[in-house]
Amino acid sequence: MNSILIKNILLDKQLRDVLIEGNRFTRIEKNIEVPADLIVDGSDKALLPPFYNAHTHAAMSLLRGCAEDMSLTEWLQDKIWPLEAKMQNDDHYVGVRLAILEMIKSGTVFFSDMYFNVPDTIRAVEEMGIRAAIGVTFLESNGPKYVERGLRFIENLPETSSRVQITITPHAVYTVSADLFKRLAAIARERSLIIHTHLAETLQEVQDCIATHGMSPVRWLDHLGLLGPNTVAAHVIHVDDYELEILRDRGVWLVHNPCSNMKLGSGVFRSADIIEKKLNVALGTDGCSSNNNLDMREEMKIAALLAKVHYGSEVLKVDEVFHWATLNGARAYGLDAGEIAVGKLADALIIDLNNVRMLPTYDLLSNWVYSADSSCIDSVICDGRFLMQGGKVPGEEFIMEAAKKAACRLAAINNQG
Amino acid sequence: MNSILIKNILLDKQLRDVLIEGNRFTRIEKNIEVPADLIVDGSDKALLPPFYNAHTHAAMSLLRGCAEDMSLTEWLQDKIWPLEAKMQNDDHYVGVRLAILEMIKSGTVFFSDMYFNVPDTIRAVEEMGIRAAIGVTFLESNGPKYVERGLRFIENLPETSSRVQITITPHAVYTVSADLFKRLAAIARERSLIIHTHLAETLQEVQDCIATHGMSPVRWLDHLGLLGPNTVAAHVIHVDDYELEILRDRGVWLVHNPCSNMKLGSGVFRSADIIEKKLNVALGTDGCSSNNNLDMREEMKIAALLAKVHYGSEVLKVDEVFHWATLNGARAYGLDAGEIAVGKLADALIIDLNNVRMLPTYDLLSNWVYSADSSCIDSVICDGRFLMQGGKVPGEEFIMEAAKKAACRLAAINNQG
Repeated sequence: MNSILIKNILLDKQLRDVLIEGNRFTRIEKNIEVPADLIVDGSDKALLPPFYNAHTHAAMSLLRGCAEDMSLTEWLQDKIWPLEAKMQNDDHYVGVRLAILEMIKSGTVFFSDMYFNVPDTIRAVEEMGIRAAIGVTFLESNGPKYVERGLRFIENLPETSSRVQITITPHAVYTVSADLFKRLAAIARERSLIIHTHLAETLQEVQDCIATHGMSPVRWLDHLGLLGPNTVAAHVIHVDDYELEILRDRGVWLVHNPCSNMKLGSGVFRSADIIEKKLNVALGTDGCSSNNNLDMREEMKIAALLAKVHYGSEVLKVDEVFHWATLNGARAYGLDAGEIAVGKLADALIIDLNNVRMLPTYDLLSNWVYSADSSCIDSVICDGRFLMQGGKVPGEEFIMEAAKKAACRLAAINNQG
Repeated sequence: MNSILIKNILLDKQLRDVLIEGNRFTRIEKNIEVPADLIVDGSDKALLPPFYNAHTHAAMSLLRGCAEDMSLTEWLQDKIWPLEAKMQNDDHYVGVRLAILEMIKSGTVFFSDMYFNVPDTIRAVEEMGIRAAIGVTFLESNGPKYVERGLRFIENLPETSSRVQITITPHAVYTVSADLFKRLAAIARERSLIIHTHLAETLQEVQDCIATHGMSPVRWLDHLGLLGPNTVAAHVIHVDDYELEILRDRGVWLVHNPCSNMKLGSGVFRSADIIEKKLNVALGTDGCSSNNNLDMREEMKIAALLAKVHYGSEVLKVDEVFHWATLNGARAYGLDAGEIAVGKLADALIIDLNNVRMLPTYDLLSNWVYSADSSCIDSVICDGRFLMQGGKVPGEEFIMEAAKKAACRLAAINNQG
């Protein structure tokens, strides 16, 4: 069993030694003296839980910056969907690898994906050592064959490592029918799979849902039996108090995506009420074509700032938003991770305290949420293995070269259209 | 005369050579073949104008993270002012150097400062090679002697390099009397100095000003003759349409500080109306104890996101917010800089295009505003000199060590109080 011993690292305001054996933290004490395969000096460094990105579309990294200053509808219909239609399987694989490289470099060890070409995503995740909940996406506009293929995939799930789980991801109330939602809910219950969907992202979605189904998206999904503790709902902006209480009572996990919601002008997440009513919340970056990065540190800061300017400077405190981005992301997807404690899965970041943005260190977490950036991350550990050490991810040049080539081809198509 | 020749660098969507002689750009062409003191390979890199931070309090970097989740008033009165009272002269110098190091590392070559101990700030700026507009601050609560000292300082301005200018910085309408404002306005006109003040930052400030002077802060300062093209007003949140027109007609420069305004819950800058009415706007980070960093790249993204969520996804486009952060910051302070063009002061950033956050490169500026972070900055040039090259700032370890020591002493005081 592989072992890593980190000596003299700052953890919870004290210098400690941390032992990782296999993929778990096994001892956290002062002065651990045992042999280990790798001994790491933690001087002038701190150990923090890494990020768990609860809602993204990884392969869209290949579309970063291809369209700006548009509303969600315009952006999807005029730019994103036509480009996506031109993406080939290998583009997905290349895009996911680009996304994972960016995630590792910015301290993320898990992402929940909603996109296409699941086998290519699985391959990229397995190779790069990160964790993921990979969604089989259902969009009825893609036709009945596409839906059937998704259902067959779920019936015969491929073998994966323990780092990978498959989720069921119906796209949204405006792209999935009542029948299919009910069918997916039944399969999810039967197979103990998580359902991950977009919910109440725009006012248009709410108005259309009321016009079509006579009720709002939250009420509609509740009516269809879709809401429960294994449901993860992204965005959740246009909701009333009663709907917040339904979501809380069903144990649904909300994912806040502040950058994307702001950039597309979708609206403001009701952080103050959601905290007061004690709903489950995790944080996500959304796809990087509407963000335009996958940086969960930046997402924490922007979540806190947005809450404060809307609901008051005391709302969404440093430790709360940090929990949304770390522990809660892990909990939403049933991972025994997200905190550095004996017995937990060994995921961690080693932070460089000799970075100008981390000084002075009156309050490490405050610096981390509000001041840091990816330059403060020295190393990233996932499942007891270093994915990045001293700022380097093995093979990163090849991943970037492949992305450049694929993007050149897509850019040529984009400029024609 | 010192010369730098940068070969084959991406600039305005083409590969070019750029020649710097002395402190100006002198040639920008393909294939420049001249001898130069330093020849730099620009392959896989881009040249961009750097940031001009139009409103900050540099030495407050020494207070980063010392107080969170509070309103402006609480934060100032209970935390910041008591700590500031304990800061010694050398702390200011150490704090400013820490701030400048962070600015250089995040691509800023100029800052407009409003704080105390001007000679220590000048010393730090001169040593570290950056540009600054350093304010002589007037706060009447500090007593008449303090005001007299400020006036005497302005009467006998010290000799400085061309990188440094002195400004007059009355703190705000609630800390400076009508008489002093008028006196400072007269001195500024006579000496051709810029006046830099806080304006209409909080609703409380507006209400108190109306109660005391019978008019709002903007109307009050206009009544006192303070508003003109040499006036820089920070924050400017709580203003009506008529006041925006006064500010435009007088040619006042507004500084938008989105992070600080959001974090302290001060309010939302009226970006859409301000753009429509064609006011002059620059961008600033405010002091890093209310931000909590000095990262202008992050400030651009957050300014754009805040504008979009409030006024629509098409408001504050990529090139607009980039101009606020670069060219307009330079123009607000009368610098012949902020764009890379022959004859302009030679300030620039060399950006690493082989950074995962800059890929794919459909749109360099969109990547820079929305996706990048300081890890994408390879080098920083100010006034024809490299302040950072290949990520390294000479002497950075000493600057950080000094900051740690000073912060330890202040932290001990903070914990007692």
